Amino acid sequence: MKAGFIGLGIMGSRMAANLQKAGFDLVVYNRTKEKAEELVKGGATLANSPEEVGKQCRVVFTMLSTPEAVEEVALGRDGFLKELPGNSLWVDCSTVNPSFSQRMAQVALKMGHRFLDAPVSGSLKPAQNGELIFLIGGEAKDVDEVRPFLDAMGKAVNHVGPHGQGASMKMVNNMLFGQVMVAFAEALRLGTSLGISEETLCQTLMNSPGGAPFLKVKEQKLLTRDFSPEFPLEWMHKDLHLASVTAYEKEVALPALQAAKELFAMAKTAGLSEQDFSAVYEFINPKNSK
Amino acid sequence: MKAGFIGLGIMGSRMAANLQKAGFDLVVYNRTKEKAEELVKGGATLANSPEEVGKQCRVVFTMLSTPEAVEEVALGRDGFLKELPGNSLWVDCSTVNPSFSQRMAQVALKMGHRFLDAPVSGSLKPAQNGELIFLIGGEAKDVDEVRPFLDAMGKAVNHVGPHGQGASMKMVNNMLFGQVMVAFAEALRLGTSLGISEETLCQTLMNSPGGAPFLKVKEQKLLTRDFSPEFPLEWMHKDLHLASVTAYEKEVALPALQAAKELFAMAKTAGLSEQDFSAVYEFINPKNSK
Amino acid sequence: MKAGFIGLGIMGSRMAANLQKAGFDLVVYNRTKEKAEELVKGGATLANSPEEVGKQCRVVFTMLSTPEAVEEVALGRDGFLKELPGNSLWVDCSTVNPSFSQRMAQVALKMGHRFLDAPVSGSLKPAQNGELIFLIGGEAKDVDEVRPFLDAMGKAVNHVGPHGQGASMKMVNNMLFGQVMVAFAEALRLGTSLGISEETLCQTLMNSPGGAPFLKVKEQKLLTRDFSPEFPLEWMHKDLHLASVTAYEKEVALPALQAAKELFAMAKTAGLSEQDFSAVYEFINPKNSK
Amino acid sequence: MKAGFIGLGIMGSRMAANLQKAGFDLVVYNRTKEKAEELVKGGATLANSPEEVGKQCRVVFTMLSTPEAVEEVALGRDGFLKELPGNSLWVDCSTVNPSFSQRMAQVALKMGHRFLDAPVSGSLKPAQNGELIFLIGGEAKDVDEVRPFLDAMGKAVNHVGPHGQGASMKMVNNMLFGQVMVAFAEALRLGTSLGISEETLCQTLMNSPGGAPFLKVKEQKLLTRDFSPEFPLEWMHKDLHLASVTAYEKEVALPALQAAKELFAMAKTAGLSEQDFSAVYEFINPKNSK
Repeated sequence: MKAGFIGLGIMGSRMAANLQKAGFDLVVYNRTKEKAEELVKGGATLANSPEEVGKQCRVVFTMLSTPEAVEEVALGRDGFLKELPGNSLWVDCSTVNPSFSQRMAQVALKMGHRFLDAPVSGSLKPAQNGELIFLIGGEAKDVDEVRPFLDAMGKAVNHVGPHGQGASMKMVNNMLFGQVMVAFAEALRLGTSLGISEETLCQTLMNSPGGAPFLKVKEQKLLTRDFSPEFPLEWMHKDLHLASVTAYEKEVALPALQAAKELFAMAKTAGLSEQDFSAVYEFINPKNSK
Repeated sequence: MKAGFIGLGIMGSRMAANLQKAGFDLVVYNRTKEKAEELVKGGATLANSPEEVGKQCRVVFTMLSTPEAVEEVALGRDGFLKELPGNSLWVDCSTVNPSFSQRMAQVALKMGHRFLDAPVSGSLKPAQNGELIFLIGGEAKDVDEVRPFLDAMGKAVNHVGPHGQGASMKMVNNMLFGQVMVAFAEALRLGTSLGISEETLCQTLMNSPGGAPFLKVKEQKLLTRDFSPEFPLEWMHKDLHLASVTAYEKEVALPALQAAKELFAMAKTAGLSEQDFSAVYEFINPKNSK
Repeated sequence: MKAGFIGLGIMGSRMAANLQKAGFDLVVYNRTKEKAEELVKGGATLANSPEEVGKQCRVVFTMLSTPEAVEEVALGRDGFLKELPGNSLWVDCSTVNPSFSQRMAQVALKMGHRFLDAPVSGSLKPAQNGELIFLIGGEAKDVDEVRPFLDAMGKAVNHVGPHGQGASMKMVNNMLFGQVMVAFAEALRLGTSLGISEETLCQTLMNSPGGAPFLKVKEQKLLTRDFSPEFPLEWMHKDLHLASVTAYEKEVALPALQAAKELFAMAKTAGLSEQDFSAVYEFINPKNSK
Repeated sequence: MKAGFIGLGIMGSRMAANLQKAGFDLVVYNRTKEKAEELVKGGATLANSPEEVGKQCRVVFTMLSTPEAVEEVALGRDGFLKELPGNSLWVDCSTVNPSFSQRMAQVALKMGHRFLDAPVSGSLKPAQNGELIFLIGGEAKDVDEVRPFLDAMGKAVNHVGPHGQGASMKMVNNMLFGQVMVAFAEALRLGTSLGISEETLCQTLMNSPGGAPFLKVKEQKLLTRDFSPEFPLEWMHKDLHLASVTAYEKEVALPALQAAKELFAMAKTAGLSEQDFSAVYEFINPKNSK
């Protein structure tokens, strides 16, 4: 039987392509159909609605940008969930808040299906190269069942715990990325104000034990100020906001997160929303500052 | 001729021991003389004052905890600087503010000597294993002159730029460490509030591209809550304060640094000053919090 | 015809009592019926459900602690809204988020009624003394219609603008109170660390042009450390969180708000949730700190 | 005998004028002599150096912008202190850090003189109208001795405590002003983003118990965006920095202060240094933002 894939944006299109390359037969859906062209050429079936995906599959992957979009394709009027054959498996790879994932799991179970929250760590290039890291919440046996698919799209499968913990880990992970990016940007700001060149600072700090590995991926963006997006700044801001709201619900104080979040908010106001999230550097240390 | 080494604390004692092991003949001084015993057994000459160090050496290393202590041993009543033979070389490995290093360089030059600010990246273990990273400000030829010494104590010599830029780079480097430590502690806080274990969080985040390499060194401290100091929390707080004062002087805004700094300040108030700086985690996520 | 009053907590009970004192005939409802006793003695009719309130009134006041509670009494199974005679007027005095007020206004209009969001500035004592300040969103003619009621409960009626702007102004107002309280607490912290007594600091700062009038109301709490609640700390934290979420939606950066909010979050963690919000001082400057 | 007045800037010139108006005979000094013209016309003696002031007076007032400037006129080569007749009284009205005031007090005592730290609360207009508030550290009898002078320049004399506590109170006071200004600016930012006009917000919030009295003085600046300086933004930033450094020395954490301070730092970077400190609003809510 075929596997469904809904959501063919920056990430989803590349993930689906890797599934196809690994030999999986796909039914795909995307609001903008043009984005499915390559996959259709490769043999995928194009569905006219999420519903049609549901009719042809026992496993469906979703990769969308907001909880609202996920809810719409799953439970909306044309949603796929009501069409799935009994005991199907829905794998949501979108980055959403843990309580949303838990609710989706409950809805799916009530309808006789199974659910995994399986967001990914890694952006454009890892998606393209099949080197994503899956952070999964749900039943171990369900993870095992879809492992062949996941292996085609990623290099590691982390089964974190029960439903919602994939989403939780993803949120925590992005929060770390966001704060580290800001910390590095501030370090460059102070360093350049002291007369050290950006090149020397990157060279030294990225090779120091304090330099997180992903920073090297951002080095060229920082040095050339070409912040073409791999993971847009407004998405990072959204994720930090999500973490902040979750912290409130859990009665946890995270002051440094808040300070970093507001810098992304100011960077948005300065017009950097659609740039890569490393463009927070352009706000913190504008190109023409001394 | 002999090399002088002043300041035999946690770091200095291990650095001097590595110099001795590499065959260098040392004259050492420390306020508490007991700390020199091992070195003296190994053949080092114990000086009764910084002055006496100055009389016997053309190269002097200093490794002290504050600018005030450095100034005292160099320029105080018993200071070594006035006793050095002409054109000697003073290498200050202490972590101090850049403007202090620049002032010391000027004083040394005026007295006919040369100066390097050469603070180190790395704490207890790298000091012990000769794996420190030197971040140096000063003249290239002077760096070359002391390279054999530096190679005995460290694994890398970064000549950053003119006088003061070694100290500058060190400050920027520590600022990055401090902020990343706080970001990681907050990530663990949020993750555990969502029901994920500290072990799983460390495992996942430390191996994620967002996890700076030094965090692995702290893993056992975080998991066991045994924060025996490698780099005491109050020193990190001091360094972040230093960065903050420098930012003010340079008219640079660093809001995320401030938020991290205040968390270290609160951790101090909570009695964690003399623990390792990773003990900021104990403040952010107390052992018995839910 | 009678006026309905739903929600007889700290604030509501006192507001209803002032309506009664002014001669208005009331139908009251509260989940815990005991709280209605005094009013019933005074002549009020006790309803067994919100529904019963709706059947007997053309004007209904609600004063509840969360949007969820408001929605339940208005639109729940026993909600009053569906029972009101046509073109009735619902005045919600609860502190809720502006978008919730706007939604309630729309729902009421659709059902053929009118709505005012009319939260109040002022806590226990102003409620008791009929000295509240109403901040109102809605139609001017509706404000005029209920002005006699409002005058019985408050000393000023501010018609801010269209639906939602009463709630908006209230949120902005509470945000100011929260930040000013934190600022004052930090000022006392720094001042006492410099050896000035709390009494002298309060005396000087509260009479300085920088001292907001409400601080004098808090003086005794600060000096005696008896933080019996007028406006509980967890409510202030909730309101600052609300402001923070609204700021995210409006793409506005408010870094100082965030710093203040996290101090309330930490105060909650320290067990001060149910104390007055001025107890943030106890967190910032614990009684036994030097 | 005459009274000395050194420092005739925005504040000092007006304070000296009020002394003169009250009938005191002055010897004045200012680096830029033009600023003394009016006073000289009024009968004041113009000194060519601080030294000359010292030779003619037993009471000297200083009103300068930095500790360095104060130290220079008092203790520099041409300093007045060494010239004063025995047991003279030096009243420093400058805003400086408490430890500096304490040091000046010690120096003065050692030289056989007396000292008061007597900074003022209030800016241009209160200085002009003789409505300043003096915050004084030192001996009560010395305060009494100069009370006639102080009464000519101000409307209140607060004797806070021993040497340094005048400066301490002033620092704490300015910290409150700075944070409240930021809180108000953020409140306006959120309010306007919700569609409420600046006029309505000012009207409501300034008359709310949360509105500090000084805000009304700033209303026109906020509404017209004409931030001509009464107390320049860079001075406020300096004072908050001073408070921050003092907090570090006293081992006190003040996170909300830091967040406010960094907003002033960003406002400086945005070119607002020389505007009134209320211009932090222009940074937080730029005129053309939605």
